[in-house]
Amino acid sequence: MRRLREKIRDIPDFPKEGIVFKDITPLLMDPECLRLAVSSIADAFRDAGVAKVCAVEARGFILGAAVACELGAGFIPIRKPGKLPADTRCCTYELEYGTDTIEIHADAVSPGEKVLMVDDLLATGGTMAAACKLVEELGGEIAGIAFLVELAFLKGARKFEGYRVNSLITFE
Amino acid sequence: MRRLREKIRDIPDFPKEGIVFKDITPLLMDPECLRLAVSSIADAFRDAGVAKVCAVEARGFILGAAVACELGAGFIPIRKPGKLPADTRCCTYELEYGTDTIEIHADAVSPGEKVLMVDDLLATGGTMAAACKLVEELGGEIAGIAFLVELAFLKGARKFEGYRVNSLITFE
Repeated sequence: MRRLREKIRDIPDFPKEGIVFKDITPLLMDPECLRLAVSSIADAFRDAGVAKVCAVEARGFILGAAVACELGAGFIPIRKPGKLPADTRCCTYELEYGTDTIEIHADAVSPGEKVLMVDDLLATGGTMAAACKLVEELGGEIAGIAFLVELAFLKGARKFEGYRVNSLITFE
Repeated sequence: MRRLREKIRDIPDFPKEGIVFKDITPLLMDPECLRLAVSSIADAFRDAGVAKVCAVEARGFILGAAVACELGAGFIPIRKPGKLPADTRCCTYELEYGTDTIEIHADAVSPGEKVLMVDDLLATGGTMAAACKLVEELGGEIAGIAFLVELAFLKGARKFEGYRVNSLITFE
């Protein structure tokens, strides 16, 4: 994964002063790195009987749907409130300051269905934990949680004990 | 494409009264339909020398990155203001009421590079026209513009005369 790691660039002071943002857009722009990222995320869960891949907008959609195609699975979008047109279930979760809410279509998951959760970045894990809760409330089984990049120093993985978690690239 | 068309459901009065929303989430959830949509979009441009696929957040990311993988191309995200971390170029365009702005990374396209634009839906075409303008201002060449669904009665295709446009499913 060194090749992928080299394509991630640091952007200092984004989105605010003192934060070093890990920008994956150079990786996405590189055809071979994009394919390698998608196939490697899929490889870690090929034995997991994944029926659907689920991702949260907006950046999660980039790798999520491509991984779904790679695994021969369907794709489920989780979105901000008011974006999904049919009957939805929502989850509100805590941020550092305030709260955020995400929604899933109520018919997106069938009971017992194995769902792989995909996102580009594991930071504190709050959004992903809320996304997992939505899938489980619909009766889905979390087959695994896949990240392209994990910021291990934020200890987000602690929120997913008992789950099968895979991160391709870890920054300590 | 009848099989794909059957997976698109009408949601009346969304996002506002009197609008019938074409919801593609049942298509995305179906593994075979998702793959068929992605490979069919790619098929229409396999001869076009596509180096990069470009899509606008959020829904454009779903098919865009998967089509990039299918074509062996890189992926370029266009986003709402303030979301892309590095140096950006922006385009402001007219909506029915007011304006909207989208951004692209300044280093996303190399001069002469062939870029395929992908989105799930062609309605009035305002956002896609702005996205094409951004790519062209960076020196990119629009290899084509691909939509999963075209609402032909809104006549958005008129904005793309002279471009190679392909829509998999058209509603008259």
